[in-house]
Amino acid sequence: MGEQLYLHGIRLNKIVTISDVPTEIVAAVDEAFTRADLVLVTGGLGPTQDDVTKETLTAYFGTKLEIRSEVLTEIENAFSSSGRKMLEVHRKQAELPKSADILLNTRGTAMGMWFEKDDKVLISMPGVPYEMKGIMREYGFDKISKFFKTNPIVHKTVLTQGIGESYIAEQITDWETSLRNEGFFLAYLPSPGMVRLRISGYAENGNAEEIDSRIDRYIAELNRRFPKYIYGTGRQTLAEVLGNLLREQNQTLALAESCTGGYIGHLITSTPGSSDYFMGGVVAYSNDSKVNILGVSANTLANHGAVSENTVKEMANGARSKFNATFAIATSGIAGPDGGTDEKPIGTVWIALAGPGKTVAKKFNFGKSRSRTITISAHSALNWLRNKILSGVLE
Amino acid sequence: MGEQLYLHGIRLNKIVTISDVPTEIVAAVDEAFTRADLVLVTGGLGPTQDDVTKETLTAYFGTKLEIRSEVLTEIENAFSSSGRKMLEVHRKQAELPKSADILLNTRGTAMGMWFEKDDKVLISMPGVPYEMKGIMREYGFDKISKFFKTNPIVHKTVLTQGIGESYIAEQITDWETSLRNEGFFLAYLPSPGMVRLRISGYAENGNAEEIDSRIDRYIAELNRRFPKYIYGTGRQTLAEVLGNLLREQNQTLALAESCTGGYIGHLITSTPGSSDYFMGGVVAYSNDSKVNILGVSANTLANHGAVSENTVKEMANGARSKFNATFAIATSGIAGPDGGTDEKPIGTVWIALAGPGKTVAKKFNFGKSRSRTITISAHSALNWLRNKILSGVLE
Repeated sequence: MGEQLYLHGIRLNKIVTISDVPTEIVAAVDEAFTRADLVLVTGGLGPTQDDVTKETLTAYFGTKLEIRSEVLTEIENAFSSSGRKMLEVHRKQAELPKSADILLNTRGTAMGMWFEKDDKVLISMPGVPYEMKGIMREYGFDKISKFFKTNPIVHKTVLTQGIGESYIAEQITDWETSLRNEGFFLAYLPSPGMVRLRISGYAENGNAEEIDSRIDRYIAELNRRFPKYIYGTGRQTLAEVLGNLLREQNQTLALAESCTGGYIGHLITSTPGSSDYFMGGVVAYSNDSKVNILGVSANTLANHGAVSENTVKEMANGARSKFNATFAIATSGIAGPDGGTDEKPIGTVWIALAGPGKTVAKKFNFGKSRSRTITISAHSALNWLRNKILSGVLE
Repeated sequence: MGEQLYLHGIRLNKIVTISDVPTEIVAAVDEAFTRADLVLVTGGLGPTQDDVTKETLTAYFGTKLEIRSEVLTEIENAFSSSGRKMLEVHRKQAELPKSADILLNTRGTAMGMWFEKDDKVLISMPGVPYEMKGIMREYGFDKISKFFKTNPIVHKTVLTQGIGESYIAEQITDWETSLRNEGFFLAYLPSPGMVRLRISGYAENGNAEEIDSRIDRYIAELNRRFPKYIYGTGRQTLAEVLGNLLREQNQTLALAESCTGGYIGHLITSTPGSSDYFMGGVVAYSNDSKVNILGVSANTLANHGAVSENTVKEMANGARSKFNATFAIATSGIAGPDGGTDEKPIGTVWIALAGPGKTVAKKFNFGKSRSRTITISAHSALNWLRNKILSGVLE
């Protein structure tokens, strides 16, 4: 929400999380109004006894609850079309503060509420992210833009995989200093195996286009310095960027996942339309399934072990042929917490890529956390395949 | 962190998120000390130019930075053992405030720092959750428990799947009222398809055991009312509970995932030790892979479509036999945003379970959000299999 508000020219000042206690809510809203023109409140609108926000805000703004018949109709229709049973508590969700504008929630029963007080605004929304985002996208941002007249902020985010923030920072010191000196801002936003770099600048006096093209020039220089690590911009996912590349070239992908256990498949199929290029995969967790379904040779497993260059290459080749795909990714590793040896410590992961002309494999070590190893293995595999497709190495 | 502090008898008063600006940090710490005895600060300790927390807190507590040689040695050892290149910015991470106690971070270069002021404490930690949790688990909570002498709070969380919070609340009104009247607290913590119910009570005068057994009696009554929906307690995951059940009975599991695209496999393999009972799965995204790898009949696909009772049952049977497993789960559905029809709208999901004696299937509709449909499908499948195994229906 902060990022979206920022895009609409509203600077996020503070986020406060408090308990569901009326006095705490009132104190927090009072404090927020002393420092901000717009206050967003989420949560506490559910139908259960621990939800007290609606009643508290109704009293705070000196108004009272009344049934809104148009909202009641919406709720009744939603229940009748889904076939779920409507309870008295759901009916009570149509009791809303008289002085508030209602921001319709089409995904649940807790409505958004817009309160005004001395040229300031408070929006109360349900805490379920899916419902809250829907309300803001459909009604909230528009209404905010009309009410407040702000200078928009231009920002772009560059997405990197496979390089730590310290290493990025070391190689862009001069670039970063020049950017800051010219009044732009840079934020490093790290997550496991990935760093997002957000560049932003204020667009005053309607010069948004100029700011935009200056940011593009900064990004062009980043692309020159880190071609392999930068996979996209904005809200793209790595799986989506790879998928677009495959779709453009009429190519398809299959998977053979051992240590990643289905996570690469999940990342790929989280992208709408992925059935255009994704044929499927095998989660080959047992050795038997590596042999019987992917066709890995029992000798290879016996001589080299499941976590080895030979095995992971045979897995990739097997998946490519079973699913009749252009490319295949295979993973095999020791995610831990058990199973490590001196030779193959916890965190050891072999990744293989197979294409029409070549199969390659590489060994990584992603450390001792099981969930990090799974996550970083998946992202590393996707970005490695992206680079190999771009350079034509697997053809 | 709030939940863990609560367990250590410290009530969470407020969470504040602010920007990386020294004046904002100082104002927030000042305000926090007026209302709390313990202040935890996360983030802003990285080596990049936007990280200003260490310098700001050093000035705030009137001390100065100095190289801690024991910390420098730890950092040097970490770099040399992982083979990564140590930069000057990493060396600077060993410059720490003189008056602070250091809470060693063994997962990264940003150390935890413990500051004291007038019997109050501030702990500064890196923002990376994995590092922050490590510091608190290894050093933070112990030091907090020794410094503050508090009444512990006893709490237990009951985990449910497949029933909405309104429906739970409606069926436990009397139970909830009696619990609150006796001085206990109840929180409903919903996430897609799941609701956690947290029951807690203060243990004063060393009566923690009595409070604990009173909470157990409340939970016993919940189990009586919702046997199918309650799958566990505490921090268990549904995949872990199902896995333990399979392990105890020496049974194994295979998957055939279409619309869930590998997510069920990911949930199962996120549990350490899952190779004891998980044989593997097929992500059968293309129709060809349903036929060629899982053995679904081409006629079934032609006559009934991929999203149908017949197809999903054949997928489950195919996975069970291919992986030689006791049980198999199969999913096929329309996650959206495209592909819906009047007969099979977006959100339609067929789930099948196959066992030694029987294969069953059920149709669900999980609504219009792709990610919610994937998540809820996966959890519904796991909980349905758990119930069917417990009742012996698939034998």
